[in-house]
Amino acid sequence: MSGLEFLRSMGRGELPGPPIAELMGFGVAEVEEGRVVFECVPAEYHYNPIGTVHGGLACALFDSAMGCAVHSELPAGVGYTTVELKVNFLRPIGIRTGRVLCEGKTIHVGGRIATAEARLLDEGGRLYGHATTTCMIFRGENGGNDRKDAGPVGEGEGAS
Amino acid sequence: MSGLEFLRSMGRGELPGPPIAELMGFGVAEVEEGRVVFECVPAEYHYNPIGTVHGGLACALFDSAMGCAVHSELPAGVGYTTVELKVNFLRPIGIRTGRVLCEGKTIHVGGRIATAEARLLDEGGRLYGHATTTCMIFRGENGGNDRKDAGPVGEGEGAS
Amino acid sequence: MSGLEFLRSMGRGELPGPPIAELMGFGVAEVEEGRVVFECVPAEYHYNPIGTVHGGLACALFDSAMGCAVHSELPAGVGYTTVELKVNFLRPIGIRTGRVLCEGKTIHVGGRIATAEARLLDEGGRLYGHATTTCMIFRGENGGNDRKDAGPVGEGEGAS
Amino acid sequence: MSGLEFLRSMGRGELPGPPIAELMGFGVAEVEEGRVVFECVPAEYHYNPIGTVHGGLACALFDSAMGCAVHSELPAGVGYTTVELKVNFLRPIGIRTGRVLCEGKTIHVGGRIATAEARLLDEGGRLYGHATTTCMIFRGENGGNDRKDAGPVGEGEGAS
Repeated sequence: MSGLEFLRSMGRGELPGPPIAELMGFGVAEVEEGRVVFECVPAEYHYNPIGTVHGGLACALFDSAMGCAVHSELPAGVGYTTVELKVNFLRPIGIRTGRVLCEGKTIHVGGRIATAEARLLDEGGRLYGHATTTCMIFRGENGGNDRKDAGPVGEGEGAS
Repeated sequence: MSGLEFLRSMGRGELPGPPIAELMGFGVAEVEEGRVVFECVPAEYHYNPIGTVHGGLACALFDSAMGCAVHSELPAGVGYTTVELKVNFLRPIGIRTGRVLCEGKTIHVGGRIATAEARLLDEGGRLYGHATTTCMIFRGENGGNDRKDAGPVGEGEGAS
Repeated sequence: MSGLEFLRSMGRGELPGPPIAELMGFGVAEVEEGRVVFECVPAEYHYNPIGTVHGGLACALFDSAMGCAVHSELPAGVGYTTVELKVNFLRPIGIRTGRVLCEGKTIHVGGRIATAEARLLDEGGRLYGHATTTCMIFRGENGGNDRKDAGPVGEGEGAS
Repeated sequence: MSGLEFLRSMGRGELPGPPIAELMGFGVAEVEEGRVVFECVPAEYHYNPIGTVHGGLACALFDSAMGCAVHSELPAGVGYTTVELKVNFLRPIGIRTGRVLCEGKTIHVGGRIATAEARLLDEGGRLYGHATTTCMIFRGENGGNDRKDAGPVGEGEGAS
């Protein structure tokens, strides 16, 4: 199954969402090749001690949207892992923000390295943050053995 | 209450931990001026679709540890917000990893900008990732009014 | 003089380019509000020990293009400084690459923080790298005095 | 020749420094395994339009110090390239700053990915900026052929 097929199956609910997505209350909203959107409704259980949503929620959305955007361009049998993630926070998020959408898009998918970017918006198009990421891609060779251990889809921390 | 007093009270359980920490199962392990350690036991509910812990958990720990390290150097009445966060993931985390510790330390606390760094380790000292952050500091002036809205302690997404 | 007027004067050669631009052989190619393009022809004097252009050239172009894009949205009397810069390198640059263009665009220009992004391309549209930056903005208040020392335009390391 | 031997030869002047180092006036000050220090005396030819040193100089020093720190841990025949670089600027640098030292140290050198960090200080120990980087390592396999094209030492933009 290619990355795109896998993500579409997950988006249609044919494959279960990952535990972290259930824990944090987010899910896949849109999937196409090179672009994946996650959605979430911020709630009090996402809050930090000072009455706004903790930065960890935005990071989880960014990591998911960008990792999956990379994954959506990978054929079956090719894995990836997130090497690094950089997030800018522009505005606080709270329960009055309403549903947010995190749109991840690939910038470059090469032989061994892929990069992607993402933006986090509310339904009015207001921007709350943006991010970029670097992923490493495993195309067979020695990567193959590692992938067997990690499962068929990806390899790392960053996969949604 | 200074940042250090606030964090120590939270560390001793006299102040409630933030909702996100209860949701994700992490908490303050150590607090001193300029250095705050968070701890977490990774579990299946932190997993991504491919059988390792989602990168969002590490990001939440990094954001907390570094934001609180900055906060620990701020006097009462001074707020801060996380402007950006950069995370490197070095190894996958799983349920066999056991308890992880995320140690955040300030690098620079200036008049308007503070920076900090953090490392994520298991109990054997094995390194799973590292991060840096930039925070903006609000020392009275117009920052004061904003802070009244946001609560007494900080201002942003990144606060513990 | 607003940032846009200043940059246009520099682009037309009415104001001298900065010393670093003469040293490294780059200059302003296009200026509009929120978008500034720098150009450079990579040469052997930009090389690292292994026969490709040193990453410092791309960084200098990115820093210039993004800092100036922010500057182009600031009115007269408002300064800025680059707080942080994140660069992804996608392909090596060499003397056969020919003229490269570095296009910087603002993402967010707020009261105290601005962010921007940039891409580095050759004349065939091939992507060599991309970057994001965070700038701090000084709108009068105590920022005013600092700016007097630093000159009329900006405040920091990142200004082109 | 291992990375350490190569860097030590360059540090002793037995191998010529790279063109970029002559252009920008910096050089190797110290080399040991996992730690490389570059030095530079900031001058007016490094300036941006607003009378401080352009951020590109600090970036070039950071890229060199961290890339070489990674290189210093690589055996002969193993190449690397800089994938990404993140820099925080803390204070403006000027001609009165005097000699600055940029100390790069590896954090993690794995099979395919290495990370490093660096700090930029004046001779009084004052901190002007800090950085982290991610490098990709080429240990034979297909990397070998690429390396033949790129020269004996490294592979990318970031190598000093």
